[in-house]
Amino acid sequence: MPYFDAASAAPLHPVARQALLAALDEGWADPARLYREGRRARLLLDAAREAAAEGVGCRPDELTFTSSGTRAVHSGISGALAGRRRVGRRLVVSAVEHSSVLHAAADHEDRGGAVHQVPVERTGAVDAGTFGRALTEDTALACLQSASHEVGTEQPVAEVAGLCRAAGVPLLVDAAQSLAWGPVPEGWSLLAGSAHKWGGPAGVGLLAVRKGVRFAPQGPRDERESGRAPGFENLPAIVAAAASLRAVRAEAEAEGARLRALVDRIRARVPALVPDVEVVGDPVRRLPHLVTFSCLYVDGETLLGELDRAGFSVSSGSSCTSSTLTPSHVLKAMGVLSEGNVRVSLPRGTAEEDVDRFLEVLPGLVAGVREKLGAPVAAASSPAPDDSLVVDALGKRCPIPVIELAKVIGGVPVGATVTVLSDDEAARLDIPAWCAMREQEYVGEEPADRGAAYVVRRLS
Amino acid sequence: MPYFDAASAAPLHPVARQALLAALDEGWADPARLYREGRRARLLLDAAREAAAEGVGCRPDELTFTSSGTRAVHSGISGALAGRRRVGRRLVVSAVEHSSVLHAAADHEDRGGAVHQVPVERTGAVDAGTFGRALTEDTALACLQSASHEVGTEQPVAEVAGLCRAAGVPLLVDAAQSLAWGPVPEGWSLLAGSAHKWGGPAGVGLLAVRKGVRFAPQGPRDERESGRAPGFENLPAIVAAAASLRAVRAEAEAEGARLRALVDRIRARVPALVPDVEVVGDPVRRLPHLVTFSCLYVDGETLLGELDRAGFSVSSGSSCTSSTLTPSHVLKAMGVLSEGNVRVSLPRGTAEEDVDRFLEVLPGLVAGVREKLGAPVAAASSPAPDDSLVVDALGKRCPIPVIELAKVIGGVPVGATVTVLSDDEAARLDIPAWCAMREQEYVGEEPADRGAAYVVRRLS
Repeated sequence: MPYFDAASAAPLHPVARQALLAALDEGWADPARLYREGRRARLLLDAAREAAAEGVGCRPDELTFTSSGTRAVHSGISGALAGRRRVGRRLVVSAVEHSSVLHAAADHEDRGGAVHQVPVERTGAVDAGTFGRALTEDTALACLQSASHEVGTEQPVAEVAGLCRAAGVPLLVDAAQSLAWGPVPEGWSLLAGSAHKWGGPAGVGLLAVRKGVRFAPQGPRDERESGRAPGFENLPAIVAAAASLRAVRAEAEAEGARLRALVDRIRARVPALVPDVEVVGDPVRRLPHLVTFSCLYVDGETLLGELDRAGFSVSSGSSCTSSTLTPSHVLKAMGVLSEGNVRVSLPRGTAEEDVDRFLEVLPGLVAGVREKLGAPVAAASSPAPDDSLVVDALGKRCPIPVIELAKVIGGVPVGATVTVLSDDEAARLDIPAWCAMREQEYVGEEPADRGAAYVVRRLS
Repeated sequence: MPYFDAASAAPLHPVARQALLAALDEGWADPARLYREGRRARLLLDAAREAAAEGVGCRPDELTFTSSGTRAVHSGISGALAGRRRVGRRLVVSAVEHSSVLHAAADHEDRGGAVHQVPVERTGAVDAGTFGRALTEDTALACLQSASHEVGTEQPVAEVAGLCRAAGVPLLVDAAQSLAWGPVPEGWSLLAGSAHKWGGPAGVGLLAVRKGVRFAPQGPRDERESGRAPGFENLPAIVAAAASLRAVRAEAEAEGARLRALVDRIRARVPALVPDVEVVGDPVRRLPHLVTFSCLYVDGETLLGELDRAGFSVSSGSSCTSSTLTPSHVLKAMGVLSEGNVRVSLPRGTAEEDVDRFLEVLPGLVAGVREKLGAPVAAASSPAPDDSLVVDALGKRCPIPVIELAKVIGGVPVGATVTVLSDDEAARLDIPAWCAMREQEYVGEEPADRGAAYVVRRLS
């Protein structure tokens, strides 16, 4: 039963489990106490901090354990913004940051701050020059992920860090997805990580703040974790987190190369095996274990359900699986197709046979979903009845609007238009993406009584 | 090696350990995902919420798991204050709340809010009438602990809850120390708890918010835990927390009665065995497992060190052990002696022999500390050289100022005064407390070039 969603949560590493068990016995007491159980807990905490700091590439006194990666991001952003309040209230983030960064940015806006989103290229990476130009004089903080949670694309962190330094703006790097594979290149000011993404237990995040970075923790604080993470330390989990970071790093080079080859196989084979698929993200500058693709004319939630029944646990940034029914902000920012989206992230130790078996079952499952939805199998070539056509897809959810478009496009003459009426938010992204994939012209969007009218001109 | 500091952190309950191990295997995946590992995690989370809600005495949908008791308190207070911002910005708390409550109150003041502290009686309990009178029309929230972390005194929660309801003010109860022993009496609006205080693992707090209570979570949020606790759920620990709450409750009546008898023994025997001791807190309306006493002429940190060497892990609210060198705010609010303070909190399963052995070694250890500090053994009766005397204890730390006072009081005639010059913050509390214990008159405090001058009149 292959689990291919390591980017959501990696299964517990055996070293983490072992360390956790040992620390449950040795590390349950309050490390702030002076009696022997407290002293023992303090020793464990200090050793864990040293090990984790080594993994991060910082000094132990720059590192704070938080209760999650999300909390590390939230505390890091609010503390850095407050520390530089006098400079200004502008926060610069890439458009593809993890939701925890974007939630913190939204909170900053709610409190009267300004947020500037740096766009990304079709690969999902920011252009360093564009990022650098966003660093105005009143910029208090910039945030850039080390690599995308959703498509695996690595960001030009070292280059952006240099531009930040030149502009005097601290850079917070969300390194949650990449810490398992190696430290973040030098130059960052703050760094956030999450243990359960590298095979550590849930309940532990890392926040590193470089000495000299102005930082004013927000909200109530106490004497724990340098005043940056109030509340009793979750010591057994912290010990397990530090031990497993060291363990995964020892395996990172060999395991990374192995998984990179498996992902390359998926990247190459999926478009060959499944028609109308777009593999997204940078093919080279990427995380070793993660690949994302989108399937035209497919409802992502249905496909995920079929894959689950076939024994594969995968995730999706598709609009069709999100509770909010809006497409993934990452795919949207990249301008790529979001329908039928599948993210495969291989955990440590994934067997080659499991990947091959995935490639074996995927084409049939996609075809099955398409058939149920009545998707076009081949380009239609019926006689042209009309110069232009209006398709009413109001009230229909992704991927139906695109399916309806694909069904009728062959029915208008080359040069004529099809207008799709849709009130599904995903259509705004998926109709232009379909046009790009199909080499048809996306004319634009017009207001309509309900939803919007998307106009497409047949070119071929 | 008896551990008598359950109030700081209880050793892990065997059921918690067992549940944690099982959940590490079954509950590491993201409960928000729809594949089988995610569904399994969701089932575990739902079951844990039901069990914990039963223990708290609320509906499952009123209960949120947080990353610690401290976090539950911080989020509960900020959310309730924000939810009633239109009513007013006044927060009413008892003077003996846990530091997490007082830190949240200080944060509220930093943001322009008002905080009113309700004083306590010498037992450590608030007077319900006094608390009720503090509930003005502009009061947004009131906070009262179920029982004191430091002296074990139970608060009149039911009575105060009635007064809060009558005044239309929500009541937040910090139930961290009492949840192991039973649910909080009905009438509260918000409740906070902490798993590692009842034998659950670190990393899990509870925040219950009754339906109908206006609540606006502060800071960035996500879709987890009803938007009240952002970040990936610490599921294995949550499962262990819920299972162990159920387990300790099943044992609570029998174990509570047993520990209550052991604490009664300490309460009765310590003053008989050790001269110049004040046992503090309510002798009847109290937690079953916790007792606090203060020893005149003793440096708390030294005594804790001696007890540790003798194999006993205990804690202290004494000024002499705190990093800030100010006396415990709880003992200060109660107006009782803070020097040589020892808190004994017995974990589940404490052996009777260990308590007896503690009572056996304590007198000798206290006597040893006093001897080293040159404390008076019996009332001095040297000839009276002077009508009044000034003792210079500047630069000397607790308990030296009180020791100096006790040494010379017999040297002035009855009716004459001794003035103690001291710049130690603890003297402000301990000199009046010594006067009360010794039946001497505390005349008052006068300003001095350094510190303060404390004037004492000899009465006997």
